[in-house]
Amino acid sequence: MDKNVSAAVIRRLPRYYRYLTDLLKVDIKRISSKELSERMGITASQIRQDLNCFGGFGQQGYGYNVESLYRELGKILGVDKRFNAIIIGAGNMGNALANYPNFKRRGYDLIGIFDINPELVGKEISGITIQSIDELESFIGKNKTDIAILTIPSQSISEVAEKVAALGVKGIWNFSPQDLKLSGDVVVENVHLSDGLMVLGYKIGELEQQNR
Amino acid sequence: MDKNVSAAVIRRLPRYYRYLTDLLKVDIKRISSKELSERMGITASQIRQDLNCFGGFGQQGYGYNVESLYRELGKILGVDKRFNAIIIGAGNMGNALANYPNFKRRGYDLIGIFDINPELVGKEISGITIQSIDELESFIGKNKTDIAILTIPSQSISEVAEKVAALGVKGIWNFSPQDLKLSGDVVVENVHLSDGLMVLGYKIGELEQQNR
Repeated sequence: MDKNVSAAVIRRLPRYYRYLTDLLKVDIKRISSKELSERMGITASQIRQDLNCFGGFGQQGYGYNVESLYRELGKILGVDKRFNAIIIGAGNMGNALANYPNFKRRGYDLIGIFDINPELVGKEISGITIQSIDELESFIGKNKTDIAILTIPSQSISEVAEKVAALGVKGIWNFSPQDLKLSGDVVVENVHLSDGLMVLGYKIGELEQQNR
Repeated sequence: MDKNVSAAVIRRLPRYYRYLTDLLKVDIKRISSKELSERMGITASQIRQDLNCFGGFGQQGYGYNVESLYRELGKILGVDKRFNAIIIGAGNMGNALANYPNFKRRGYDLIGIFDINPELVGKEISGITIQSIDELESFIGKNKTDIAILTIPSQSISEVAEKVAALGVKGIWNFSPQDLKLSGDVVVENVHLSDGLMVLGYKIGELEQQNR
């Protein structure tokens, strides 16, 4: 696999994967890059380039075998692995994520929820008892933890992120508006919810121009 | 403005915008596409191409004026406008979004929250009283509503989306895992939280390969 696959390509892979899931549901067995292009709004040449980064699964004149492309992309995205995840921050966002139905489907098992607030400790979310953040170190020592989902305020984000990284967590999914940059053997995915709002603002502006 | 700006370019604009915000905070007044490239991990030619779609704000040999680029991108993204937004679905995700500090900063004013559950009606989130979904039509009739943020389960998403579209809402921000496609004068931004998890899974796989 090419190690220098661009971030933009990687970001498109989940879209391909979701789209292939939908095709499989309606029993479509193969698809050309041209059809994929029309359905997804990405140019056919872009699609071929994207999928070529990973060895290319298409065949000239036949197109892509939906199921095998789905399986290959799933492997690349790690959906075939199981990752153990914990949530730190049992507020509204932590609650929402703990109950999000797609995580299990994407290969993630939620094994723990932590909060600093003693009033929340002992309560249950989605069948998991909230623990004190003081228990974090001993918990990770006993339970293989791949991912920490951080749903805590910006001011504590760096400290908590460095702590979980030092404890050996491999990936951090950061929901605070503050970007995280960590060195060493941990990868970070920063979520920027308000980017979606800005894209929406752009699209509304475009729509208004068209209707003028 | 070119009307056929690709979705990929549009999706990168909020990143440029956030990045420029950070530069302004540390009082950096101009930046070359090369520097932007190194800091953002996007090639310099990609950056020039992206920004050219909007008339291009750079000058050969000088680079970009950070403040004017920031202002121009803000206009394109509609950050300089005020949008009135309502949240439908006062569960955890609705609560989390109602309290998200960045929305006001991005030009959005939350003016109403609705839910179907009578036990939630009358309670307050972020200073706004939750109303029954039955009040939606009369509320939108009396209050200019630009955006509906839908934080409701997949099974009711189409029905509610069509309803708000018929009531004249211009944009829908859909947090259900079910993609929305609506025709007519309404734009949709589908949020796919679990795409971020898949990207994280990919990055962890890449890290493990490097360390092998």
